[in-house]
Amino acid sequence: MKKLVIGVDIGGINTAFGLVDENGDLYAESVISTKKYPYFDDYKAYVADLCDAMHAMADSLSFDYELAGIGIGAPNANYHKGTIETPANLWKFREDEPNPDESRRIFLLVEDIARCFGGVKTLMTNDANAATIGEMVYGNAKGMRDFIMVTLGTGLGSGFVANGEMIYGSDGFAGEFGHIIVERNGRQCGCGRRGCLETYVSATGIKRTAFELMATMTAPSKLRDIAFADFDASMISAAAAQGDPVALEAFRVTGEMLGRALADIVAITSPEAIFLFGGLSKAGKLLFEPTQWYMEENMLSMFKNKVKLLPSGIQGKNAAILGSSALIWQSMQQ
Amino acid sequence: MKKLVIGVDIGGINTAFGLVDENGDLYAESVISTKKYPYFDDYKAYVADLCDAMHAMADSLSFDYELAGIGIGAPNANYHKGTIETPANLWKFREDEPNPDESRRIFLLVEDIARCFGGVKTLMTNDANAATIGEMVYGNAKGMRDFIMVTLGTGLGSGFVANGEMIYGSDGFAGEFGHIIVERNGRQCGCGRRGCLETYVSATGIKRTAFELMATMTAPSKLRDIAFADFDASMISAAAAQGDPVALEAFRVTGEMLGRALADIVAITSPEAIFLFGGLSKAGKLLFEPTQWYMEENMLSMFKNKVKLLPSGIQGKNAAILGSSALIWQSMQQ
Repeated sequence: MKKLVIGVDIGGINTAFGLVDENGDLYAESVISTKKYPYFDDYKAYVADLCDAMHAMADSLSFDYELAGIGIGAPNANYHKGTIETPANLWKFREDEPNPDESRRIFLLVEDIARCFGGVKTLMTNDANAATIGEMVYGNAKGMRDFIMVTLGTGLGSGFVANGEMIYGSDGFAGEFGHIIVERNGRQCGCGRRGCLETYVSATGIKRTAFELMATMTAPSKLRDIAFADFDASMISAAAAQGDPVALEAFRVTGEMLGRALADIVAITSPEAIFLFGGLSKAGKLLFEPTQWYMEENMLSMFKNKVKLLPSGIQGKNAAILGSSALIWQSMQQ
Repeated sequence: MKKLVIGVDIGGINTAFGLVDENGDLYAESVISTKKYPYFDDYKAYVADLCDAMHAMADSLSFDYELAGIGIGAPNANYHKGTIETPANLWKFREDEPNPDESRRIFLLVEDIARCFGGVKTLMTNDANAATIGEMVYGNAKGMRDFIMVTLGTGLGSGFVANGEMIYGSDGFAGEFGHIIVERNGRQCGCGRRGCLETYVSATGIKRTAFELMATMTAPSKLRDIAFADFDASMISAAAAQGDPVALEAFRVTGEMLGRALADIVAITSPEAIFLFGGLSKAGKLLFEPTQWYMEENMLSMFKNKVKLLPSGIQGKNAAILGSSALIWQSMQQ
């Protein structure tokens, strides 16, 4: 009988899920709101609604199949424990509303989801690690034993693979490349510190850079007509494609910050390749060219001209669902 | 029959080697000069002399044993290929003499040493990785699956273990934590770049810091009586132990630079513990206290108060030989 896996992607606004086969083909998909359950204050209702919606999708197929497992990608997910911890970040896009409860809260999501599917194998990791495993199972990292995935969304996530295995770390939270500090006393970060890489390199980061550049540069720019609150990173890509000097400089600065940080991290794990994934990476050579240049420029000589900088092979609207589902296929290979 | 391994530590001045059992007990040891063969220009003579001296030591025991293998630690060693590449660094202590040949040169040391011992299993990695494996096999990292080793000698070396395995990286050269850039346009580094961690955190680094502080501070200090060329890091430890303000500040600055960098790297691999090894780590709480403080101060909240900062369990004059020998014992466990 055909085997399928449910991949679940828990984002701050929506929770999307789908039925996926081992080739990454999607047979059904659905979605519920995450935002309806702010801060998981009514976590039980969220789990109940998610289970119902997943069962409805699972029952919708017209052929028989075996459910091989459920893979979940979620912010602050602990792979070892199957928990989501400190979910404040789930809602960090709500810049106006700080987390009302600063204490660490822990939700046993893997246990709860497995229970509602008769104890089927369920695994969870953070969204960036899920994307990383998706790249190994379905994407451009097939057969690679050492690589780094960088996911560029609202923030910057990452996954590190060494010796063919995901680095989860002793506590299950490894791979927070977005929170290495690249500027002492730099930009304020949602994590409470300053100068984290993701405050420069992410959709939010390049927007902040564009506004800084509108202050420091005198060049005319279409971007000067857009208010901060109305602004999103895709406008910078569009302007850069038309030669807008502020937008072009914003990409150069972003590539410089990312390239420098990649040069440092290459010295640690010496990957075969680095993959860029997510919204900002779709800017293509606007981002890849300066990133590659500054990475090589700052690289320790023994690593120069060795490390490939590549686009992810699982881009697209279902990438996050595919990544989560890959957790199960990969665990079956081991 | 008892099994023994030969551990070989190739340093810039000497090549030391010894016969070691699986508990880390040393049965014989010997040494030849490395410095006599500058830049390996006469590499064949070096290998011939090393083989002769190793055989003489191996034959010196009064009981029969089985030689289970040879483990080698050497700068710029490639674990995957068994080669030493760009050995300029072997002699980088000779600051007055730049490497006459800047091109990359490759020596097949593992093959050559194995041949002179009838093809016995021979493995080689860099000295810091060897110390890391020594910590796993004989030291304080027994049973740990995720940890980081930082070796503080003339430079700063490191080894990263994730999922119970050494991270060698795709090219065999991973673990160059000493060459992440911590200060843009900072101190000149032997690698040709500026601001590498090891220019601040190492025996050489703290010496440079002490001289910088003698310029910026007005406090009296015994260190002001010693010329740069006559100075070594142990003098700073001795002065700090007597309350010398310049020496104490030099340790605080060193701990700040190391603690910040460790906070960044914890976010990548999330280790259970970080071990400090080598000369400078013997300064004890002079180094550990500020390092721990700045590491926690700069840590992403999810990692705070989780990661142990510990002294290596294989300190001592034979640590490098033990580390190299551990390569073989560890490979037999896998």
